[in-house]
Amino acid sequence: MIAELAVHRQPIVDALRDIDAGLGDELADVNRWGHDLRVRMLEFAQRGKLIRGSLVAASAAAFGRPVDGAVYTVAAAVELVQSFLLIHDDIMDEDPLRRGSPAVFEQYRRYGSDHGFRHRRRFGESMAICAGDVAILVVFAAISSIEIEESTRVRLMSLLAREIAKVGVAQMADVANGHDPAPATEDEIVSVYQFKTGRYTFSLPLMLGAILAGTDAMVVDALCRWGDLQGVVFQIRDDQLGIMGDADQTGKPVGSDIMANKQTLHRLTLFEAIAGTEWEDVRACFGRDQLSPDEIGRVRRALEQTGTIALLDRRIAQLRSDSAREIAGIGLGDAPRRLLDAIDAYNAARDV
Amino acid sequence: MIAELAVHRQPIVDALRDIDAGLGDELADVNRWGHDLRVRMLEFAQRGKLIRGSLVAASAAAFGRPVDGAVYTVAAAVELVQSFLLIHDDIMDEDPLRRGSPAVFEQYRRYGSDHGFRHRRRFGESMAICAGDVAILVVFAAISSIEIEESTRVRLMSLLAREIAKVGVAQMADVANGHDPAPATEDEIVSVYQFKTGRYTFSLPLMLGAILAGTDAMVVDALCRWGDLQGVVFQIRDDQLGIMGDADQTGKPVGSDIMANKQTLHRLTLFEAIAGTEWEDVRACFGRDQLSPDEIGRVRRALEQTGTIALLDRRIAQLRSDSAREIAGIGLGDAPRRLLDAIDAYNAARDV
Repeated sequence: MIAELAVHRQPIVDALRDIDAGLGDELADVNRWGHDLRVRMLEFAQRGKLIRGSLVAASAAAFGRPVDGAVYTVAAAVELVQSFLLIHDDIMDEDPLRRGSPAVFEQYRRYGSDHGFRHRRRFGESMAICAGDVAILVVFAAISSIEIEESTRVRLMSLLAREIAKVGVAQMADVANGHDPAPATEDEIVSVYQFKTGRYTFSLPLMLGAILAGTDAMVVDALCRWGDLQGVVFQIRDDQLGIMGDADQTGKPVGSDIMANKQTLHRLTLFEAIAGTEWEDVRACFGRDQLSPDEIGRVRRALEQTGTIALLDRRIAQLRSDSAREIAGIGLGDAPRRLLDAIDAYNAARDV
Repeated sequence: MIAELAVHRQPIVDALRDIDAGLGDELADVNRWGHDLRVRMLEFAQRGKLIRGSLVAASAAAFGRPVDGAVYTVAAAVELVQSFLLIHDDIMDEDPLRRGSPAVFEQYRRYGSDHGFRHRRRFGESMAICAGDVAILVVFAAISSIEIEESTRVRLMSLLAREIAKVGVAQMADVANGHDPAPATEDEIVSVYQFKTGRYTFSLPLMLGAILAGTDAMVVDALCRWGDLQGVVFQIRDDQLGIMGDADQTGKPVGSDIMANKQTLHRLTLFEAIAGTEWEDVRACFGRDQLSPDEIGRVRRALEQTGTIALLDRRIAQLRSDSAREIAGIGLGDAPRRLLDAIDAYNAARDV
């Protein structure tokens, strides 16, 4: 990831522990499940890459705010937002693994199994719905008690609530795209990329940092538009690495999106390009339970030889130049410009 | 319900519509699911009895605050908290009916069915997880933009976040009690009553209203303890009506808690009392798929003749006198005292 973010990791972990120390006792006082949950929640949040939280801190610093405990509390809260979303996403995707360990619903399912509970799967999913719910409430409890001026606290909570609500709506479209046999349109796919990846991975952390630094609303709005476009770049690269990348480097099994038949821009563009060509049989690889290395190789060659990869690379170049235009006239200082340039360069070139 | 609450119903519905008008467009702008959700969310929230929201308004008025738009926005937000909790609860309980209409997960399942979606049940549940998530985020977005002083907004959001987090933890215990073959202890059952029913139905609305009126923290804390105890009274009465009440009056099928084998204080007390008596076979009625009118009659007689009903009636009397003690020394004015007396009388005597 972006080198200058690494310095924020340990302080964010410390802030997560402080939030747990401050609110965890209240949860543990309700019943034994409150105690159990605080342990799982802290462990889950710490195990992430903490990129979004680090971006909050990097943005605050770039816009001239001392990176103090208040900033790291917001950064940690953003990581708990991530926990909330992932805990619920894993239920929807029925994905028992997350960050190399059992997903939260799977942790509870196993607990139910170990203790002779009835209907363990339902138990696991129900407990994980509650766990995600508690995580997002802890986010607002934590931010409401940060020692900064009240107007800033209100601004942060208002932004978080509105933007994460939109992430939830984008997630609905993502769920629907996975169940609807009709193909999603290009606009529908890009909208999921923008709101589920862009708004939440880039725009929101950058905006929160800028607000902590007391930055003008005009600049904050430009950061939102910039982050949305960069998020689409990030997601297109992510989809591409999932097919063309090296599993050892990405840590993700090659072709998993093809087997899941995920509605990506690559899939949509490829399907349009292969009609009536020698590659038409490649379509049948999508949604298959198993793919041989030969089949994956054939999909890769189809993506190259139909010009799908080249077309999406041009699209990435266009999105990057669009994003540059969004921040051209707003008089950004050197430090924020360096941060955005580093993110832009990373998104364009990353191979893991 | 309590007569003086009815006056608040229409203004809360109007406030729900205002929240929808203010935030719904933002959701609808994300994608078509955002539009679909705002319609379902508003319809769902309006269909409730709006008791909790009405209590917010009644409490604010009793503590001397003019009941204006700000108060009704908080009241409407509390109703959206209720929507959030019920939408998720219905998934966990697999209960396809809510408020006489399809539960939200069932609405989406049917949508999936009507549109030829794959895995409709999973689709319905996933969409309902998202819908509940969006509802709780709309709560914080709505309160963060109320036009009252910022310190009050922060206090309201902090209280809501902390207390609803505890409701989530109590819900975890309720879920676990439904799956664990080992019986819950009396303390565990009462803790669910206190945090899931009391804190959220009585304490929280009363506290929010008092905070809106600028009431002292000492009084707000006493309201919390009073509401917790009254909540336990309410829930014991609710359980009792579910077995002993008249289905035509309660609107709930008689004996549904017995068939669901719900871990209530009645069940726990009865099971302790029937050991070695002529009523021992009554135990086998709990958890049965079907119960005849004769079997329900036999459970009712066992509850009467083992002294279970009398014991729990004494417990209700004790809880009411404990709750009175919590507010005895805090110098409550006439208006708040009248409101609390009305709630207490209702909880003690209600037969629907």
